[in-house]
Amino acid sequence: MLKPLRSHQKKSQSKVFNNSEPEVSMIFRQLFDEESNTYTYLIADKNTSEAILVDPVLEQVDRDLKLLEDLNLTLLYCLETHIHADHVTGTGELRERTGCMGLVPENAHTPCASGYVKPEQLLTVGSITIRAIETHGHTDSHMAYLVDGTHLLTGDALLIRGCGRTDFQSGDAGELYDSITQRLFVLPDSTFVYPAHDYRGNTVSTIGEEKRLNPRFVDIEQPNPLLRTRQDFVYLMDNLGLPMPKKIMEAVPANEACGKRAKALAN
Amino acid sequence: MLKPLRSHQKKSQSKVFNNSEPEVSMIFRQLFDEESNTYTYLIADKNTSEAILVDPVLEQVDRDLKLLEDLNLTLLYCLETHIHADHVTGTGELRERTGCMGLVPENAHTPCASGYVKPEQLLTVGSITIRAIETHGHTDSHMAYLVDGTHLLTGDALLIRGCGRTDFQSGDAGELYDSITQRLFVLPDSTFVYPAHDYRGNTVSTIGEEKRLNPRFVDIEQPNPLLRTRQDFVYLMDNLGLPMPKKIMEAVPANEACGKRAKALAN
Repeated sequence: MLKPLRSHQKKSQSKVFNNSEPEVSMIFRQLFDEESNTYTYLIADKNTSEAILVDPVLEQVDRDLKLLEDLNLTLLYCLETHIHADHVTGTGELRERTGCMGLVPENAHTPCASGYVKPEQLLTVGSITIRAIETHGHTDSHMAYLVDGTHLLTGDALLIRGCGRTDFQSGDAGELYDSITQRLFVLPDSTFVYPAHDYRGNTVSTIGEEKRLNPRFVDIEQPNPLLRTRQDFVYLMDNLGLPMPKKIMEAVPANEACGKRAKALAN
Repeated sequence: MLKPLRSHQKKSQSKVFNNSEPEVSMIFRQLFDEESNTYTYLIADKNTSEAILVDPVLEQVDRDLKLLEDLNLTLLYCLETHIHADHVTGTGELRERTGCMGLVPENAHTPCASGYVKPEQLLTVGSITIRAIETHGHTDSHMAYLVDGTHLLTGDALLIRGCGRTDFQSGDAGELYDSITQRLFVLPDSTFVYPAHDYRGNTVSTIGEEKRLNPRFVDIEQPNPLLRTRQDFVYLMDNLGLPMPKKIMEAVPANEACGKRAKALAN
């Protein structure tokens, strides 16, 4: 409702100028690369100034370094949800310029990585805990990361009203179905879903929304939509008929070399 | 630090599966229009299912209506921070299709508006309060909106590491300086800054960051950066030499007609 100021002025001002509320220690930033529609995530603890970047993009390294500098943060890790086919990772460049570690999910074909993340492994950045959740299916080495118990970075496994394709890079539709339904849809409905991409301008969703509204997993045409069967999902994914990503021939070898494009092409 | 699961498993799981935390009643969604680099904001109260859209974009009306439907929300208002020159508002179309009210800041040349928002006026959406803060300067009728005391929608007045231009639509650099320094920079440093646009892929900042790092307001080249003087800011803004926005000849008259493009062009 529209209301005049008078009746609310005191309440509003006390709220606006109240500096005594407990400070939230987590910095959480979603960053967008327009060319590849990729979201990179910066997660940091204000108190310790430690930071982590998830799925950085090569062309955005200067932007990301500037933000780290602006916020006086030390980059501990660059972390990949998986080996990307649509953009080249910024990890190699960021590792060279900051000395951070470059971490990838176990089974990724990246001998240059600083370390490999195992299912259910916990990473800590100051007081913030990041839990790796195995979510194979889009590729055969994919992790989602649950940040602070509330923010789920879903990579290309679960997208907003969609999911990653399963027709290359050892993708497996049945495995993706199991990953999403058994490991992500069991999280609380209020869990925020932050994907690696969105092509419609959405920035965030929730597990509750995706369980109810994601047309890849729910037959939303039915009057009382139910979760699709595994067989139904596999049939759907096997018949999408999508074109290959534009950058796949360049991006996958470059990402298996931690983002070193020239080196990858020379091999 | 990388840690094995065992030592943290219990703590993490209890956090992940704890459904008893108090539910946050505010839905806050940032939505992006790639063509105009515009952010639209959806704010709603889960408990009452009432919603408001700030700065909707005509080409995204179907997307925004689908999201309202998905979340079972009733659109009360479309609210403009100002009369835009870079995109046509979705307000007219949304008003026709939902019966919502279309609100603009007072002094806007939009006789078709359902209502005009005054400085310091409070709008309520369920239990959420939205405070209008007069921020003239980019144009002569501009409001920022402080949502729930924490999320500041800054329109084109304050951008992330930038600000709106002041060289058309009755813009006034001195007035913009006064608006930002006297009305926005006095808010708590932790206040989130959500602008109407970003061209580098940033989605959010804070008042503390902008007071310290915004090069339009702070001479960041100096060893101990200080707030620019009003005179210095006006000189800077008067010498930017920017090209006109591509859509200005179409967008301003259309927005003064609440987004009715054909009608505006026919007049």
